[in-house]
Amino acid sequence: MSDATSTTHHDLSPEQQAREAELVHTVLDSFGSTTSPRLRELVQGVVTHLHAFLRDVRLTEEEWKQGIDFLTAVGHITDERRQEFILLSDTLGASMQTIAINNEAYADATEATVFGPFFVEDAPRIDLGGDIAGAASGQPCWVEGTVTDTDGNAVPGARIEVWEADEDGFYDVQYDDDRIAGRAHLFSDDEGRYHFWAITPTPYPIPHDGPVGRMLAATGRSPMRASHLHFMVTAEGRRTLVTHIFVRGDELLDKDSVFGVKESLVMDFVEQPAGTPTPDGRDLADTAWSRVRFDIVLAPDGV
Amino acid sequence: MSDATSTTHHDLSPEQQAREAELVHTVLDSFGSTTSPRLRELVQGVVTHLHAFLRDVRLTEEEWKQGIDFLTAVGHITDERRQEFILLSDTLGASMQTIAINNEAYADATEATVFGPFFVEDAPRIDLGGDIAGAASGQPCWVEGTVTDTDGNAVPGARIEVWEADEDGFYDVQYDDDRIAGRAHLFSDDEGRYHFWAITPTPYPIPHDGPVGRMLAATGRSPMRASHLHFMVTAEGRRTLVTHIFVRGDELLDKDSVFGVKESLVMDFVEQPAGTPTPDGRDLADTAWSRVRFDIVLAPDGV
Repeated sequence: MSDATSTTHHDLSPEQQAREAELVHTVLDSFGSTTSPRLRELVQGVVTHLHAFLRDVRLTEEEWKQGIDFLTAVGHITDERRQEFILLSDTLGASMQTIAINNEAYADATEATVFGPFFVEDAPRIDLGGDIAGAASGQPCWVEGTVTDTDGNAVPGARIEVWEADEDGFYDVQYDDDRIAGRAHLFSDDEGRYHFWAITPTPYPIPHDGPVGRMLAATGRSPMRASHLHFMVTAEGRRTLVTHIFVRGDELLDKDSVFGVKESLVMDFVEQPAGTPTPDGRDLADTAWSRVRFDIVLAPDGV
Repeated sequence: MSDATSTTHHDLSPEQQAREAELVHTVLDSFGSTTSPRLRELVQGVVTHLHAFLRDVRLTEEEWKQGIDFLTAVGHITDERRQEFILLSDTLGASMQTIAINNEAYADATEATVFGPFFVEDAPRIDLGGDIAGAASGQPCWVEGTVTDTDGNAVPGARIEVWEADEDGFYDVQYDDDRIAGRAHLFSDDEGRYHFWAITPTPYPIPHDGPVGRMLAATGRSPMRASHLHFMVTAEGRRTLVTHIFVRGDELLDKDSVFGVKESLVMDFVEQPAGTPTPDGRDLADTAWSRVRFDIVLAPDGV
């Protein structure tokens, strides 16, 4: 751990610096009896970096109060359908950094990105070729690919969770009713293949009518996310992959509000004019659609 | 500002370190258009130290979720009478560090300590010699002293807010009803003198039936606060003083749960056997009481 207690400010008296450093050590010592070594490391890490922040920016008492008020507002808007703390973590890049720390590059394994606040347990199961859209509006999109390991072997029976916003930018949990839409899970077949219908991803703002939205506005940042489709892929003996695929050509790719975009996750969503035959014979009448291929490579568990 | 983006871990590949550092810079850059220079410094400081924490402790995704759940619980227990974020700041020493940063030692000015979550605006005014106890139970305590500046001149008309817990360890805002007790404000007289009746401070736990209490329990820490009486003193042209006085001999002085104790704030609360005449002739019948002297020295504003 870096010794953030050694922070120095040349415009502070040695007495003042010593006083501040002593307080850090007193607080660190107070956690010295923590039984769990990992918990002790975590709380002492919080103390070290929190105090380094306060001392670096010379936080004023008024700013401290504003910080307390901000966190209180984040807490109060959070409920079972709105998770403002995750939005805060996402917009500060903390979610993406945690993903980076825990998903080190391994061979050609597919890269991970942010989980986001909109995943729901127990999304409906669909068969291969099924449609995740449900009540979600948007242009139909055929999604296909394979799940393999980093040696190129097929991974049959991988559980693939997919979820996305509708063309108005809303996930089903943001609807006023309890409809389930734009989410499902399916399993790869015996040869590791999968395919399903979804809707072509479109850009949308993260919820920005709360304190995180006010923070973004005050700092000149946009709440917009690059268009994407979420995946979470789990399989026995494999590292769980939480990721998205993004749409090549989207002008938001380099300014995603949660820092989730990675070049390797940008895919070609190929537009199909109305009347183009569909892979499974689905009759889309005079509707244009799109198709995308996403081959998923899973790292071994524990890397 | 210290360059926390330079954190190095010798067991990480250079590629992994570069990836993590690049993300920090991307997030810092996203805040580059913040109009207010101070706000930019604050948010970039948060980003720098938050990411340094994540990278130092190598936070796992499960721990990240537990952190989100913890903050959510802190938010949900917080209401108009319970401020769990302040308790969290207090128990991590962040409140005391903010006080230290903003109240540098100045001549013989009285030292500051934590504000705590129990101050209430518009506490009743009492005259000099009045009693702040109201419905609060406890041993009567005579408190007297002077308010002077650092040149030794009397500060007349200083507004002195005082508040404390009752002998059961509860502030009035923790009662089930709306009684006001154990708090008031008064003004120093023309010679800077003040005196009032309060109750002898006794130790009590900070509210520990919530997430902060669980954090303290998990880390082997006590929620107990050393016995104290809160003061906030304001006067024209003087730095506002937020402090407590503590009771010499209290065994909790060196393990206060919010790190508020300073040696200069430990006072002699002198026990007075039942029947000892009171300074103002108040008839306490066969009740023992105590008395304490606290001479307050205010720094100039802006130091």
